[in-house]
Amino acid sequence: MLKKNIETFLGCDKEFEEAKIVLFGAPFDSTTSYRPGTRFASRTMRAESYGLETYSPYLDLDLEDAAVFDGGDLELPFGSVENALEDIEEFTQKIIDCDKLPLMIGGEHLVTLGAVRAVAAKYPDLHIVHFDAHADLRDDYLGAKLSHATVLHRVWNIVGDNKIFQFGIRSGDKSEFVWGKDHVKTQRFNFNNLKETVMALKGKPVYFTVDLDVLDAAVFPGTGTPEAGGVSFDELRCAMKLVAENCNIVGTDMVELSPPYDQSGISTATALKLLREYLLALDYNINNK
Amino acid sequence: MLKKNIETFLGCDKEFEEAKIVLFGAPFDSTTSYRPGTRFASRTMRAESYGLETYSPYLDLDLEDAAVFDGGDLELPFGSVENALEDIEEFTQKIIDCDKLPLMIGGEHLVTLGAVRAVAAKYPDLHIVHFDAHADLRDDYLGAKLSHATVLHRVWNIVGDNKIFQFGIRSGDKSEFVWGKDHVKTQRFNFNNLKETVMALKGKPVYFTVDLDVLDAAVFPGTGTPEAGGVSFDELRCAMKLVAENCNIVGTDMVELSPPYDQSGISTATALKLLREYLLALDYNINNK
Amino acid sequence: MLKKNIETFLGCDKEFEEAKIVLFGAPFDSTTSYRPGTRFASRTMRAESYGLETYSPYLDLDLEDAAVFDGGDLELPFGSVENALEDIEEFTQKIIDCDKLPLMIGGEHLVTLGAVRAVAAKYPDLHIVHFDAHADLRDDYLGAKLSHATVLHRVWNIVGDNKIFQFGIRSGDKSEFVWGKDHVKTQRFNFNNLKETVMALKGKPVYFTVDLDVLDAAVFPGTGTPEAGGVSFDELRCAMKLVAENCNIVGTDMVELSPPYDQSGISTATALKLLREYLLALDYNINNK
Amino acid sequence: MLKKNIETFLGCDKEFEEAKIVLFGAPFDSTTSYRPGTRFASRTMRAESYGLETYSPYLDLDLEDAAVFDGGDLELPFGSVENALEDIEEFTQKIIDCDKLPLMIGGEHLVTLGAVRAVAAKYPDLHIVHFDAHADLRDDYLGAKLSHATVLHRVWNIVGDNKIFQFGIRSGDKSEFVWGKDHVKTQRFNFNNLKETVMALKGKPVYFTVDLDVLDAAVFPGTGTPEAGGVSFDELRCAMKLVAENCNIVGTDMVELSPPYDQSGISTATALKLLREYLLALDYNINNK
Amino acid sequence: MLKKNIETFLGCDKEFEEAKIVLFGAPFDSTTSYRPGTRFASRTMRAESYGLETYSPYLDLDLEDAAVFDGGDLELPFGSVENALEDIEEFTQKIIDCDKLPLMIGGEHLVTLGAVRAVAAKYPDLHIVHFDAHADLRDDYLGAKLSHATVLHRVWNIVGDNKIFQFGIRSGDKSEFVWGKDHVKTQRFNFNNLKETVMALKGKPVYFTVDLDVLDAAVFPGTGTPEAGGVSFDELRCAMKLVAENCNIVGTDMVELSPPYDQSGISTATALKLLREYLLALDYNINNK
Amino acid sequence: MLKKNIETFLGCDKEFEEAKIVLFGAPFDSTTSYRPGTRFASRTMRAESYGLETYSPYLDLDLEDAAVFDGGDLELPFGSVENALEDIEEFTQKIIDCDKLPLMIGGEHLVTLGAVRAVAAKYPDLHIVHFDAHADLRDDYLGAKLSHATVLHRVWNIVGDNKIFQFGIRSGDKSEFVWGKDHVKTQRFNFNNLKETVMALKGKPVYFTVDLDVLDAAVFPGTGTPEAGGVSFDELRCAMKLVAENCNIVGTDMVELSPPYDQSGISTATALKLLREYLLALDYNINNK
Repeated sequence: MLKKNIETFLGCDKEFEEAKIVLFGAPFDSTTSYRPGTRFASRTMRAESYGLETYSPYLDLDLEDAAVFDGGDLELPFGSVENALEDIEEFTQKIIDCDKLPLMIGGEHLVTLGAVRAVAAKYPDLHIVHFDAHADLRDDYLGAKLSHATVLHRVWNIVGDNKIFQFGIRSGDKSEFVWGKDHVKTQRFNFNNLKETVMALKGKPVYFTVDLDVLDAAVFPGTGTPEAGGVSFDELRCAMKLVAENCNIVGTDMVELSPPYDQSGISTATALKLLREYLLALDYNINNK
Repeated sequence: MLKKNIETFLGCDKEFEEAKIVLFGAPFDSTTSYRPGTRFASRTMRAESYGLETYSPYLDLDLEDAAVFDGGDLELPFGSVENALEDIEEFTQKIIDCDKLPLMIGGEHLVTLGAVRAVAAKYPDLHIVHFDAHADLRDDYLGAKLSHATVLHRVWNIVGDNKIFQFGIRSGDKSEFVWGKDHVKTQRFNFNNLKETVMALKGKPVYFTVDLDVLDAAVFPGTGTPEAGGVSFDELRCAMKLVAENCNIVGTDMVELSPPYDQSGISTATALKLLREYLLALDYNINNK
Repeated sequence: MLKKNIETFLGCDKEFEEAKIVLFGAPFDSTTSYRPGTRFASRTMRAESYGLETYSPYLDLDLEDAAVFDGGDLELPFGSVENALEDIEEFTQKIIDCDKLPLMIGGEHLVTLGAVRAVAAKYPDLHIVHFDAHADLRDDYLGAKLSHATVLHRVWNIVGDNKIFQFGIRSGDKSEFVWGKDHVKTQRFNFNNLKETVMALKGKPVYFTVDLDVLDAAVFPGTGTPEAGGVSFDELRCAMKLVAENCNIVGTDMVELSPPYDQSGISTATALKLLREYLLALDYNINNK
Repeated sequence: MLKKNIETFLGCDKEFEEAKIVLFGAPFDSTTSYRPGTRFASRTMRAESYGLETYSPYLDLDLEDAAVFDGGDLELPFGSVENALEDIEEFTQKIIDCDKLPLMIGGEHLVTLGAVRAVAAKYPDLHIVHFDAHADLRDDYLGAKLSHATVLHRVWNIVGDNKIFQFGIRSGDKSEFVWGKDHVKTQRFNFNNLKETVMALKGKPVYFTVDLDVLDAAVFPGTGTPEAGGVSFDELRCAMKLVAENCNIVGTDMVELSPPYDQSGISTATALKLLREYLLALDYNINNK
Repeated sequence: MLKKNIETFLGCDKEFEEAKIVLFGAPFDSTTSYRPGTRFASRTMRAESYGLETYSPYLDLDLEDAAVFDGGDLELPFGSVENALEDIEEFTQKIIDCDKLPLMIGGEHLVTLGAVRAVAAKYPDLHIVHFDAHADLRDDYLGAKLSHATVLHRVWNIVGDNKIFQFGIRSGDKSEFVWGKDHVKTQRFNFNNLKETVMALKGKPVYFTVDLDVLDAAVFPGTGTPEAGGVSFDELRCAMKLVAENCNIVGTDMVELSPPYDQSGISTATALKLLREYLLALDYNINNK
Repeated sequence: MLKKNIETFLGCDKEFEEAKIVLFGAPFDSTTSYRPGTRFASRTMRAESYGLETYSPYLDLDLEDAAVFDGGDLELPFGSVENALEDIEEFTQKIIDCDKLPLMIGGEHLVTLGAVRAVAAKYPDLHIVHFDAHADLRDDYLGAKLSHATVLHRVWNIVGDNKIFQFGIRSGDKSEFVWGKDHVKTQRFNFNNLKETVMALKGKPVYFTVDLDVLDAAVFPGTGTPEAGGVSFDELRCAMKLVAENCNIVGTDMVELSPPYDQSGISTATALKLLREYLLALDYNINNK
């Protein structure tokens, strides 16, 4: 008797019960204002997973030994933003109810709001570490409150002042930067002060959201709004490792890979390698804390 | 003193006052469930307009002599479906209030709903002529009432039974076809019976909506959901001419060109040539009735 | 508890036991001499399946009612041609041992040889119906006996004279056509005489292999060696229906979709629609004979 | 001792002395007003030649038996239009001085002027058979006398009234069609009356120029200005055969393949197959007259 | 009454009278010897402008406050090089006659010659600052005096010895470097000595021409001749800022973006961000000197 | 009398007799497990050669003065791995029998094995310098002994322990790294210790194999398995120069350019520039030792 066709990220094929980390995709990009396509990120990453080794020469660790389960992709209604966020919130809650760490693959950045809602309900003192090229701090965007461009403002509505720590920001409205000064901590252009931030957050529950467009446009062309002047692969890899090894991460995501603009495939390959390194660091940290 | 940079479809550069037909773009694709990108249609068609002659050897007419104004593109909020439809409705109403014919360039097919709302308010006995590969008759799609896949059902909510005439339909849920039998007239695969339909509609107000994916996938690859087995360019050109010359068209649109999937540019070129032929036939008809 | 990520062709999600037809992918293209890439066909077809309805307006049948199981893709060793063929043969044999119909998705055309070996072992009087642009009748190709260009000659080694019926052939070496005259029946360019052939094969066991490049290059650009002057989608759809409804098909395949050359996606969409129509016709035939 | 790397169209590797037909490339597109890229046609056709058989199942003839020499590509100065035309004229003259038939691969359509100058000098009564989507009859284009859009007007300056026979024309300025009525014979949209024309030209020297955009845009997307509503591959193949078999062709070309817009490669493959069929018909005709 | 469709670079929508800087496009690439396509740069940059914020977090300045007018694109005759240069010269002269700063968007590098002619007529002591990967110092190229490869030699014919300062040069004929030693100042590979140069040019009229291929090929793939080993985005951004803040710029351009080779869009996005930063620095400098 | 069409890498058009270095292509990728396409590398590099100057501003040397012959491409049987390796071995042997240096352009990395077999037969004490992202040290891959993933293990079978020196390695199975520790020298991620290695190899015969994916994925997207975190163009250029100037190179290759994934052309341009610099350094070294 033959088996059905199962596809996972990077060969993460543990059973749900034994997993400590639960991956899932949130293929949604309805509010993307520039170039849509992040809806294809999770399925493309799964399909391209066979091109990457499970072993990391950086960490000398292997994903085959990590306790990660891939729960597939949510089926989200395009055009019904609030419904989509509810579906994400509900799915995230199921995962944290089982005391597992949710790691969501976007989709556009707005999907973070759904996951943060679930996580913040369980961890009222939630802090946010946010890597991005864009501040995403608008209060509304063309009249819409729920948008990829307002998502961190919406998250601020939940967690409040001085809980959000942004790094790598190099684009935004003037008003975002002005408003941000009083409400969030923003490190422009790079990861300076990340170490100090991470140390200051020791012990506190952290939601870590990585918008991959924090990478330089040359390194990561396959995204909705590529921005020159960003960080390198190695800078991001090390920064994510720093957060993974030192913070008490209770929810996390990686968003904004847009395969239609990744003709050569380097953005998908880069996202997968970052995911591997990040999963290995998270898994190692969970097992050793 | 230098002039600002004005870009129009096909050199349609008449002033608003003198125009009989008003073109505008509705760049919106938030509910597209398969491959987004129709938001780029209107700007791409304007940019590529310089590749097409204004003269038609089919009709021996020239767009330079036609009374067409290009009102540019609406700025629609991605993710806020109802708001986007209201913007379209309001803009359409402005045009028909001036007794001009609105010709909207989508965008996904849902934009038709906004225009039909405005037109139906003025013409209660509105009939719909609908060219498409897809029935678009679902009542809801993944829980959403407003979607490219439900748009003709929403239009039916406005105009009622036996007012919608579909041609070229070759894809849909079984339930759509079953429901459709009692409420709309559907011609599968081709334009058979179009002449009879057009004759029967003589004198009645007609909204004519053309989903370009009624074309065969080889002829028109650049669309969200290309479908093999469709009509040829000449079949569509003649069918549109037949409607334009015989119906009392009070509102109209052309939707679903998706430039990101039109790498060779043939779909944009084809859409432009159909638009030229259609505009010339409409303009001729307006001037001679 | 969450479920793993299962991906199938066209929602073919029956259990193995209840299925009458078993789909599987043979992602192999090591002997392709012109443009490789058919290795990506099966995974791309699965990923794009969500863009196609399960209901056929041609047949008024729905794949949700069909008894089809998707067994996933074989993991074939690139560069080890004989090993790959053995894996295909073994997997095919498992399926026919359970009295189910194997439907293989290539891969290059050579994969047919592995399946035919298994099927011919069970059905010694096996006949072949072969749709293709290329004769594929060389005895060797650049010294290699196992190649996409020799596959029908290898099949002839198994089934013998006058058992192979080719249609749509429009490319080949002169020597192939000369040799072919004495050993196989070849209909050039089109499906003339298909009906007569199908009638003459009544009751005999048939392996039906469809090389999708029998389609015109404009209709099906995404293949290794696109050939102008081929058949249309509707011609192929009807021809496959004719074979499915009248022959005793005991093994079958559909090969040579090459996604890297299908930038617009129309070839994949066309292959999927042909697969849907073919599966529905096969399933209907199985249930009604 | 090793041999240098020689690349030819379709394996046309005869020596110059034994050849009756001389192929060469004219990679020039400086006056192209819409989408440049035809400069890459000849080198791309050579590189892709290995994907096509030398044998024609249509004609039962093989290019290996034909007397064709490939003289490579001219090195033309981009931006110096008159110099480029002189280089083409000079090269063409060398070929006809050796009593061989020049077959030039463009490049944009203006290159035809260079070849016609040389041929008309030898054959004062030269007639032109012209397949194209565009009339190319402007007297000047944006002030320039030498342009792809004026080339047939320039040719008319040489050959005079009623010597040019156009087929397939479906695009142009109104003024071109008006002017053309008095000076050239234009068959719109198709090849109707080609047979009569060919018969009437019996015995007269003919320059035959084929702009490949006479093909439908779906069949031939890879061209500077693709036009819907064109002829099919088989219609063009047969029409070229008709001319080759019945006219006294003393110079000829095939122009306007633009590889940058041929992402799937079907246009290059189609151009090559037409070239093979055309060369075989020409060669057969030369040997049998 | 509705308004016409106006498209500008980066929302630069000031009226001509109030503007200090006048942007315009020179879409011309007829002498490009390698890969054409820069003709599409200006229209693509306008179309993609909506993806970039008008605010610069580098400078804390906003383009909404800058006095920039967009005069649209010149309509240049392809193939008539001297005519095209005259059109550019004439348009540039109109701008400087109104005491505004012309900022031309190419097009190939030859367009610089047209602008320099106009500017040098007004400022006889004109100096040139030139960023580029290529020396562009040939005296002729394949026999042509007017070519993208000779443009700086032609400029030298106007301004004379020791007036041209090149930076970033990493490609050229041996003869260019030999000739250049006696006539221009060339800094190979990087911006070393730029500060000293800029200081030495204080007060003198400067034409500043930026060939974007000075950027590394990975950062800027979308150009006619991409060259590895170039400068980074931040290096170029800072170098342009240095020139803008310290030189008396009387004419300037940015050339050689080629959208057809920018499939991912990062080159256009990078060009736009550099243009924003450059415009802001120029505008600030104009207002504060 | 006209000359045939000869195409070479970078204008390397010396006669075989006078050449010291012999270039040739090995277009083979049958064992590629991820993304095929390296078979197109050599022909694409030749076709794009005209975009690069023959003069190096880095070295102040010109390829026109170098003694390099281009022997064209081998015609290798796809799918017959051992036969292909034999063809490569035989061709390489012809070159070294004439006391010339073979420089092979891949193809996938397995082609190295054919060349090493020939070279090692002549130089029993052969050492290997290996630049790569991947260790390529597996003993078998999916059961196959001959594969791009096993090639250095096969080379080790010939040369034995401590003869292979790897640099830049950043991907592989855990088992490869474990096995490698006892048998080869592996420098992870970069070129640290290259100088010491090169010095230690003074006088010994060296085969130098460069897998271009040692470059960062952003710099070199056009390869089968792009890997983030690699070296820059300048790092690789200098490292290759170091080896070329100090080692006794008796055989060498450059592999894994895959044009189908190099849509923008930067990978091909980068490979060509590296080849130019490498050829110049080799030629200089040969003439001065």
